[in-house]
Amino acid sequence: MDDLPGSFGTSASLALRLGQTIFSFASLLFMCFDVQFYSYTAFCYLVTVMGLVVPWSMTFVVVDAYSVFVKFLPRQPRTVLIVVLGDWALSFLLLSAACSTASATDLLLDAGYCHAKLCGRFQLSAAMAFLSWFLSLGSFLFNLWLLPSL
Amino acid sequence: MDDLPGSFGTSASLALRLGQTIFSFASLLFMCFDVQFYSYTAFCYLVTVMGLVVPWSMTFVVVDAYSVFVKFLPRQPRTVLIVVLGDWALSFLLLSAACSTASATDLLLDAGYCHAKLCGRFQLSAAMAFLSWFLSLGSFLFNLWLLPSL
Repeated sequence: MDDLPGSFGTSASLALRLGQTIFSFASLLFMCFDVQFYSYTAFCYLVTVMGLVVPWSMTFVVVDAYSVFVKFLPRQPRTVLIVVLGDWALSFLLLSAACSTASATDLLLDAGYCHAKLCGRFQLSAAMAFLSWFLSLGSFLFNLWLLPSL
Repeated sequence: MDDLPGSFGTSASLALRLGQTIFSFASLLFMCFDVQFYSYTAFCYLVTVMGLVVPWSMTFVVVDAYSVFVKFLPRQPRTVLIVVLGDWALSFLLLSAACSTASATDLLLDAGYCHAKLCGRFQLSAAMAFLSWFLSLGSFLFNLWLLPSL
């Protein structure tokens, strides 16, 4: 089962992790850059979650890149289990953060509390968080599929 | 593996399904009864999701009760697969609805748009949705565990 695409240490996994890193970072930037996000709980929660997701994804970008381009790393069941559990927890956190942000943005837009440009940035941030969740779920499922064969 | 507690057709599963039905119904009641929920997108979404979860859970309350008290129903892989996929989809919908409702309620409370009693009901509704998500995830995991042995 060493060739299962998308699982830990393959080029598809590298692509998924790169996507997660880029989308999470974009979400963080849209939310934080030059915006007073900390007056709303939902936005603080998104920033906190992204603060967990970005280092996690970046670590695996490095590990996967090493595995693909330099030397194939042996897969140990314990490592894959930790990856699966981490991805599982982070995918729940990402989904909840994305939903909270989307809901808060919608309400702010309806109430006219933020002008169109600012609300557009919040919406973009929520959309990036949803994309990041989707890729994180993909990573989780591929690694879960790999787990019984180890 | 017929004795795995919590899987389709056991008394633990009946308890989980009963809990889901009760919490979903409570969430729906707190949200709908005598409240104009339809002016907020997040609350409409919660009501829509609960409109899917309540009949789904009630169906399995009936099936599990029949299986426990009358006659043990044989488990077919295809049926369990449908149950697993349904629970999986509904648990995502429940989590997203609960997070959206919690986020919107928090924002309304901060902005002073609803008085304490009304916001308390929205908060209770979100809490019930979270509990329902938790039980739904439990059902999903137990049935997923059962699936490979069929």
